[in-house]
Amino acid sequence: MPTSRVRIQLAEARPPFFVGVDLGGTNIKVGLVDDDGRTLVFKTLRTEVKKGPEDAAARMGKAVLEVIDEAGLTPDAVPAVGLGTPGTMDIPAGMMLEPPNLSGWRNVPIRAMLSRHCGKPVTFANDAGAAAFGEYWCGSGRHLQSLVLLTLGTGIGGGIIIDNLSIDGHHSHGAEVGHIIIDYRETARLCSCGATGHLEGYVGAPAVVRRTQEALADGRQSSITAQLDAGAKLTPRLLAEQAEAGDALALELILDTACFLGVGIVSLLNTIDPEGVVLGGAMTFGGSASGVGRQFLDRIRQEVRARAFPVLAEQTVIDFASLGGDAGYIGAAGLARASYHRS
Amino acid sequence: MPTSRVRIQLAEARPPFFVGVDLGGTNIKVGLVDDDGRTLVFKTLRTEVKKGPEDAAARMGKAVLEVIDEAGLTPDAVPAVGLGTPGTMDIPAGMMLEPPNLSGWRNVPIRAMLSRHCGKPVTFANDAGAAAFGEYWCGSGRHLQSLVLLTLGTGIGGGIIIDNLSIDGHHSHGAEVGHIIIDYRETARLCSCGATGHLEGYVGAPAVVRRTQEALADGRQSSITAQLDAGAKLTPRLLAEQAEAGDALALELILDTACFLGVGIVSLLNTIDPEGVVLGGAMTFGGSASGVGRQFLDRIRQEVRARAFPVLAEQTVIDFASLGGDAGYIGAAGLARASYHRS
Repeated sequence: MPTSRVRIQLAEARPPFFVGVDLGGTNIKVGLVDDDGRTLVFKTLRTEVKKGPEDAAARMGKAVLEVIDEAGLTPDAVPAVGLGTPGTMDIPAGMMLEPPNLSGWRNVPIRAMLSRHCGKPVTFANDAGAAAFGEYWCGSGRHLQSLVLLTLGTGIGGGIIIDNLSIDGHHSHGAEVGHIIIDYRETARLCSCGATGHLEGYVGAPAVVRRTQEALADGRQSSITAQLDAGAKLTPRLLAEQAEAGDALALELILDTACFLGVGIVSLLNTIDPEGVVLGGAMTFGGSASGVGRQFLDRIRQEVRARAFPVLAEQTVIDFASLGGDAGYIGAAGLARASYHRS
Repeated sequence: MPTSRVRIQLAEARPPFFVGVDLGGTNIKVGLVDDDGRTLVFKTLRTEVKKGPEDAAARMGKAVLEVIDEAGLTPDAVPAVGLGTPGTMDIPAGMMLEPPNLSGWRNVPIRAMLSRHCGKPVTFANDAGAAAFGEYWCGSGRHLQSLVLLTLGTGIGGGIIIDNLSIDGHHSHGAEVGHIIIDYRETARLCSCGATGHLEGYVGAPAVVRRTQEALADGRQSSITAQLDAGAKLTPRLLAEQAEAGDALALELILDTACFLGVGIVSLLNTIDPEGVVLGGAMTFGGSASGVGRQFLDRIRQEVRARAFPVLAEQTVIDFASLGGDAGYIGAAGLARASYHRS
């Protein structure tokens, strides 16, 4: 069963309205937002990858019409819909190419499929690009003219927004910030993509786990060992918990992660020079709600300050994202809105 | 005495006309171009840094009016002027901040000064950003929708152009591509800016010289040694000459430079994903006119192909710039033109 929740009421909302769809490997999020990006109706569907893209597109289209109806609106109140999808894509063509988390969905013209099922023009984006736009429009980047979002998790994704425009790249490969090279040597760490020296090979969740295993194998003392012996799974979350409980090694590994991220961020500042950098995704070690999360952010800021040009070190905003898992559909709706207001 | 040269005649030219000014540490280039970027009249002045910015601004303003007059035009045929300057700057404010090659010119409102002296609105840009725009408009990037220019020399500069817009950055520090980090370690090579691991610390002209000195100190055999004994100066140009004459070490050092550049370019592709990358500046080891220059370019392409995602490896154009020292004033004029056509 899809879950639904309401955030603001129609009487408080400001038209026109936009629907954003965030298609992931497990869930599809569909939300109706107003012209200020506030959510009226939201629902989550299961992706059900095995049923294929046509089935999913039909259910997404139906969900778009449902959230409009549940808000007490008619379809003509919504001029446009936005869609973010993961993996490789051809954005101008509206195609998903070969998304790793959607096995078998190759070369899918998803934009046209969703448009057909919901009867609306669809603005198409990379999921991390959509999340970046969400943070830019309504999240922790809402006062910034330009930002880079880094999404921290199994993979390190990102989005670049400058003056209301998403930098998608000529081949729809812009903002693949996990694949910035931070060590040119052949002996550098291996990335999940098979290449060496990429940022993701140091700070993606599997890399954090690997660095922990290496430290334990080196004989480093840590409360992590007892946790693993008791059957816990080695994850960034376990590290955050143990660091919060006072384990020095866990904290060290988290702060090393922050330093590597700082290196990648400096390369981004010296390329894009955004007004701010925003850190989102599942792997923020508790984020601003936790002491360890705040130490993680402080260490990133320290590393950037130590390595960046003085103006950038002093002035570039570095902060956690604030929309959580809502950033994707809000941003997709925001991109549809930006396209609508431009035309 | 300023030098002048004419490229096309007024009868062949297409109005409106724009004047571009490229202010460097030694020379100031001033050129009048038509709406297709073709030069009608060009002149070079000495910068005469010691006489200060007011003196230079007055001479630049006079030169702008001279090139218009020498083309047989009146000032009303030129709606706008473009100016590119080196070093740190505040582009929105029209200020040079602390350009290293213009000693004593601190916090100079150069845009307003030039505008006052020539009576035209002035579009202001970083010199490498202007050169990037020149290559994009009329040079080897003229068929590309987006490009990154790397200027190779003592410093490694750059410019990023996407869909006719220059990515200047929020703090006017965009496209500082020499300061991308390619080695995160504290033991990495030192950059001229004082930080470690930057691309420029491996491929800037002083770094190429340093790597050569290290190889010779390691006892590597090379015809460079005899050249130095005969009083030659160790420069990238000497390396190119010796490599062209068959010296294996000189060629190896040039191709190592290419590999480091390939690493930095991959980080740029995974951030900006431009349609093409263009290599300009004084240190292209002979460029496309020389066998060594072509090997240098081939090795950059190989390194990028080996490290980039398949789509980018196959499709991203990598080539030498084609406008040489004219790129700066042509691009400055082009930015003035773009601003004029937008308004």
